[in-house]
Amino acid sequence: RDLVNGKAPDGHVDDPFKDDPARDAALIEHSARPCNSETPISELGSYITPTEKFYVRNHLWVPDVSDAETHRLTIELFDGEEVEYTVADLRKKFKEYSTTATLQCSGNRRSHLTQASQPTNGIQWGIGAISTATWTGVRLRDVLADVGVDLQDPDENIRHVQFIGAEAYGASIPVDKAIDRHGDVLLVYNMNGQPLPRDHGFPLRALVPGHVAARSVKWLNKIVVSDEESSSQWQRRDYKCFGPNVSASDPDWNAAPAIQEVPVQSAITSVCHVKADKLKDSDLAEDSVVLQGYAFAGGGRHIVRVDVSPDEGRTWLQAHLQEDGAKIGAFGSPDDRRAWAWRLWRVVVPVTQVSGKFCIKAIDDSYNVQPDTFEPNYNFRGNLANAWHRVPVSRDDKSG
Amino acid sequence: RDLVNGKAPDGHVDDPFKDDPARDAALIEHSARPCNSETPISELGSYITPTEKFYVRNHLWVPDVSDAETHRLTIELFDGEEVEYTVADLRKKFKEYSTTATLQCSGNRRSHLTQASQPTNGIQWGIGAISTATWTGVRLRDVLADVGVDLQDPDENIRHVQFIGAEAYGASIPVDKAIDRHGDVLLVYNMNGQPLPRDHGFPLRALVPGHVAARSVKWLNKIVVSDEESSSQWQRRDYKCFGPNVSASDPDWNAAPAIQEVPVQSAITSVCHVKADKLKDSDLAEDSVVLQGYAFAGGGRHIVRVDVSPDEGRTWLQAHLQEDGAKIGAFGSPDDRRAWAWRLWRVVVPVTQVSGKFCIKAIDDSYNVQPDTFEPNYNFRGNLANAWHRVPVSRDDKSG
Ligand SMILES: [Mo]
Ligand SMILES: [Mo]
Repeated sequence: RDLVNGKAPDGHVDDPFKDDPARDAALIEHSARPCNSETPISELGSYITPTEKFYVRNHLWVPDVSDAETHRLTIELFDGEEVEYTVADLRKKFKEYSTTATLQCSGNRRSHLTQASQPTNGIQWGIGAISTATWTGVRLRDVLADVGVDLQDPDENIRHVQFIGAEAYGASIPVDKAIDRHGDVLLVYNMNGQPLPRDHGFPLRALVPGHVAARSVKWLNKIVVSDEESSSQWQRRDYKCFGPNVSASDPDWNAAPAIQEVPVQSAITSVCHVKADKLKDSDLAEDSVVLQGYAFAGGGRHIVRVDVSPDEGRTWLQAHLQEDGAKIGAFGSPDDRRAWAWRLWRVVVPVTQVSGKFCIKAIDDSYNVQPDTFEPNYNFRGNLANAWHRVPVSRDDKSG
Repeated sequence: RDLVNGKAPDGHVDDPFKDDPARDAALIEHSARPCNSETPISELGSYITPTEKFYVRNHLWVPDVSDAETHRLTIELFDGEEVEYTVADLRKKFKEYSTTATLQCSGNRRSHLTQASQPTNGIQWGIGAISTATWTGVRLRDVLADVGVDLQDPDENIRHVQFIGAEAYGASIPVDKAIDRHGDVLLVYNMNGQPLPRDHGFPLRALVPGHVAARSVKWLNKIVVSDEESSSQWQRRDYKCFGPNVSASDPDWNAAPAIQEVPVQSAITSVCHVKADKLKDSDLAEDSVVLQGYAFAGGGRHIVRVDVSPDEGRTWLQAHLQEDGAKIGAFGSPDDRRAWAWRLWRVVVPVTQVSGKFCIKAIDDSYNVQPDTFEPNYNFRGNLANAWHRVPVSRDDKSG
């Protein structure tokens, strides 16, 4: 589906995937050509996802960019003028920034939506199409200022900033996000302190924190300042949500906006039954279930609460939000709308309170919540599946 | 509850409410002292709410500010310096802006939450604690620039902008919103082309579009540029949401953030059964039900879809979004995150499809959705009640 008309564009070698890099065997592979592999659940408890375990979502092949320092980024201005920077130019000319940000595929948890309702188009991701890294590069706004964009009062024709990757993928973001002084859009060359791996965009990618990962274009070689969104299928078609009654056969593609900021999301990554005398980090006297997981919201919105139900939604308690997210994830203070990374959470539930499935839901700082169920939010693309995560309790342990 | 320790602050006359203005008899009064009255449903179909039908949410009495033009606004800077402007100064010195924006009380639809779950603290508003007006004034960011705040790179001590009203009410907003070039925070003196009525803040109020109305402080006489939020009970206590298990007796007030941007919301304002031959504006041949209503999201997020179910959530169709909101409501284009006003919507459902209650839910441009039900989102203050609006179909009409 991600190929052009079902095959590689003209002029490419017969097998454009033959130079794809080797991947970590622990990744859960959904497709090999292009590579789409999710982070295993065992790695989702790590605040910073180990680089080699970071989920891979490729739409096409991995382009072979041989020389990092001489790789050229072309910026096309609104008047058609082009300005070029090598990666070495970017490093030399602009101040370097690092931020810790979570990327999430719009298809994360799609398999849950499918199971709960009807078939959906797309890769049937579990809860692992999401990962977090510390990204280092230069700010897009600084580069745009350098090519003459007025950050305070940009030409009103400039509405979108388009990104084009070396393999032909393209997407765009609204100009307000691109130039926002707290938008933190980066042109990234390092991931977790090392050069970007080939699967994650070597030698240069966009990072658009708080937006769906599909906008953080990899193998970046061109930026276009425009009055229009990217004309790619990934901007104008695939990454949109339609109503539950709209079928794949005849959507009005223009009726829905391209996904940019993503809604509040959460998942349970670990359910551990612990006997009372083994509860080393708790003074609870009862046999308990320790749940752990992640929560994330787009748009820089902070996670303010994670509610956990041990009885299918009848009663609730609050999970403990780990501190790391607040400290590492944002440039600024909790007053900023710059919570670019997930919050990991943990809760201990006495076994006597457990009855039926566990449910969790997260709340963001606009007090948006996750919907109770999937079916009323069915969309044929299966994007942005974020109903409560429900996880069964094993019968043996429950009797505990 | 909104008085200080249950009574008027010291030094005030015995009956501070004696000079309150007269109100329109059509408003639905929940309390008289202070005045809390909602817009009648019959007026909720008007894109611009007639000024005298705009809901009134007063926390205390209406202060008597006799001379509009000499009313003084004091701005206290971070170093303690104070700068004063009369309303006449503001009009003369700064460019005038108008925007159409919806204000919604955090308690809108609280009665629905209470009915569906448990008792809540606060006024039991229906669907009318929301209204829309065109507001005219000067931009807060221009005034802040005039007193020396660097809009591009403000002193990092400056985190919040506090507003204080003449009657003692106070609240604050994050500085990023206050200085955002597209934040559109105004110091307002006109409402729908006329001087502000006394109930709506004469002669000067704040307008913080996209945020809960409690931040749009009326009878504004002081602004404080600060490292801290307002210390008022309305900032630190009342306008927060806690988990479903937290009771009014012992909340950890600091554990939840003050409500600023509000989540996606919608309501049905009209259910009209129409015989086929009376359907003047439709070519439907069947007897039908015409539903109308509003949808709104905070943070400048556009409403992208309103889903309507004629059968308690089993099947869905999309309402038609009226155009007025997109044209009048925002300064800019749909690409902006500046949808400050509600969208009115309308849908025609053939009677044969109707089975059980109507349900509606709106979706915003971050693809946040409304939760299915109230009970899992119970909070003892009853704030931000936004589960699907469910409305019964009368039995007679349903049979067609
Ligand atoms: Mo994706
Ligand atoms: Mo309110």
